[in-house]
Amino acid sequence: MKIGFIGLGIMGKPMALHLKAAGHEITVPERKSLDAELRGACTVAADATAVAAAAEVTIIMVPDTPDVEAVLFGPGGVAAGLSAGKLVIDMSSISPTATKDFAAKVRAKGADYLDAPVSGGEVGAKQASLTIMVGGSQAAFDRARPLFDKMGKNVTLVGDTGAGQTCKVANQIIVALTIEAVGEALVFASKAGADPAKVRQALMGGLATSRILELHGERMIKRTFAPGFRIALHQKDLNLALTSARELGVALPNTASTQQLFSACVAAGGGQLDHSGLVKALETMAAHPVAPDQD
Amino acid sequence: MKIGFIGLGIMGKPMALHLKAAGHEITVPERKSLDAELRGACTVAADATAVAAAAEVTIIMVPDTPDVEAVLFGPGGVAAGLSAGKLVIDMSSISPTATKDFAAKVRAKGADYLDAPVSGGEVGAKQASLTIMVGGSQAAFDRARPLFDKMGKNVTLVGDTGAGQTCKVANQIIVALTIEAVGEALVFASKAGADPAKVRQALMGGLATSRILELHGERMIKRTFAPGFRIALHQKDLNLALTSARELGVALPNTASTQQLFSACVAAGGGQLDHSGLVKALETMAAHPVAPDQD
Repeated sequence: MKIGFIGLGIMGKPMALHLKAAGHEITVPERKSLDAELRGACTVAADATAVAAAAEVTIIMVPDTPDVEAVLFGPGGVAAGLSAGKLVIDMSSISPTATKDFAAKVRAKGADYLDAPVSGGEVGAKQASLTIMVGGSQAAFDRARPLFDKMGKNVTLVGDTGAGQTCKVANQIIVALTIEAVGEALVFASKAGADPAKVRQALMGGLATSRILELHGERMIKRTFAPGFRIALHQKDLNLALTSARELGVALPNTASTQQLFSACVAAGGGQLDHSGLVKALETMAAHPVAPDQD
Repeated sequence: MKIGFIGLGIMGKPMALHLKAAGHEITVPERKSLDAELRGACTVAADATAVAAAAEVTIIMVPDTPDVEAVLFGPGGVAAGLSAGKLVIDMSSISPTATKDFAAKVRAKGADYLDAPVSGGEVGAKQASLTIMVGGSQAAFDRARPLFDKMGKNVTLVGDTGAGQTCKVANQIIVALTIEAVGEALVFASKAGADPAKVRQALMGGLATSRILELHGERMIKRTFAPGFRIALHQKDLNLALTSARELGVALPNTASTQQLFSACVAAGGGQLDHSGLVKALETMAAHPVAPDQD
């Protein structure tokens, strides 16, 4: 299939190369940052308009809502290259509300639109093991499914347009609040004189079992706060959750307080730490780290 | 081994019967509530003093801190039957601070003491798959280990006296806050127009994966709030966490707000619901259930 790919960063590059390895033709827009590997594997077009004009399916993987808007509707953007029968897949993590607007404008060109944000990070992108949460029509999903299966493992059509982004917001809420939960538990245990490593070990296998207790609990204990997923990015995601919740009329009390803890981390210069570094904000409130920092 | 067992309720009865099935002699104190199965399997003694006098190891499994205190030090209590070389194992979930006092008094009699609270509930007790979190000496733990292995699967010596109870508090913090996290995510998704069942399915396998998302997420969606583990009991456990945290000088912001949500459930008459029913408090704040109630 002829695929356009826009946004070839830490996530997008391995995703595009998986599609290339599966036999697809990949077209990308010219950027000075394109490395030799990408120039060798892909056709380079002048801009996003040319990419979309050449491709049957155009995939977007950029950081935030304004970036997607610029890629789609800015000068030299995707929209100008669209025509009937083409498909746009936005795999960025952005606002569910804005997504509905973007999809309507794309459909007005006769093209179709899927929102398909991912979780699993850089490791998941490299290993083609991403979780992919999709919003849009069944027909568009069926058409894109073979592509998703080359980039991820747990691929779900969650619902109509925007449902993929809604699902990603739900994911970021659960991940942040579970990190916070594990943080409170380990700080409590440590302050009470118990060994947090033993506590974590004792809890694994029971009802407290989670991927977060396994991975992020260990990072808190071993003080390995190199990202991973940065606090500043997770803070952006919780802002998205709280903004959307306000629009919808939903109270998210622990999302709000966890966002404040991320803010405390950022204020203390920790915005570039892995999100497991949230525990440092809790430790400040206990004057007692889970374990000594190794600096 | 000669074992005394005090507290033969929903949890204690199957635990005692597993020990009997493994070939141990079980002595229990006379109670009108003892059923034919227990009377057939166990020797019945007059009171807890007689139980402790007859047993090498006395196991206690009662609801709360004052119950353990009464069993140990009340009239006809365990302490009066203790002598050098005996071992008391408290498998109830109680205060870590009170536990240190109880252990000191038991040791003054020449006996040893382990705190060994469990998680896994009635199902875990029946299937002998409990998680057992132990505080005390290595020697006492080694002596009790064969008994623990007949009642549970994940058995850990967490640390010194009280560390088992501290670990259980940590467990209850993580479980409550993860339920709350899943609740916020599913209410948000539902209010945003996505199908919460599809969202849960999409998130399973990713970083949001937890036993709680699997079990309690499903209960929220299917509206199956029969306990399970009752909100009123989990509220008791979070009170224990917050009281201990205040004594220790630790701030637990999301434990505090989650405790308030449990209080809202109790105020609305939901104290006897399964703890997954916490989602109802969040739904009230969104005026939108995850799915319709089935009554």
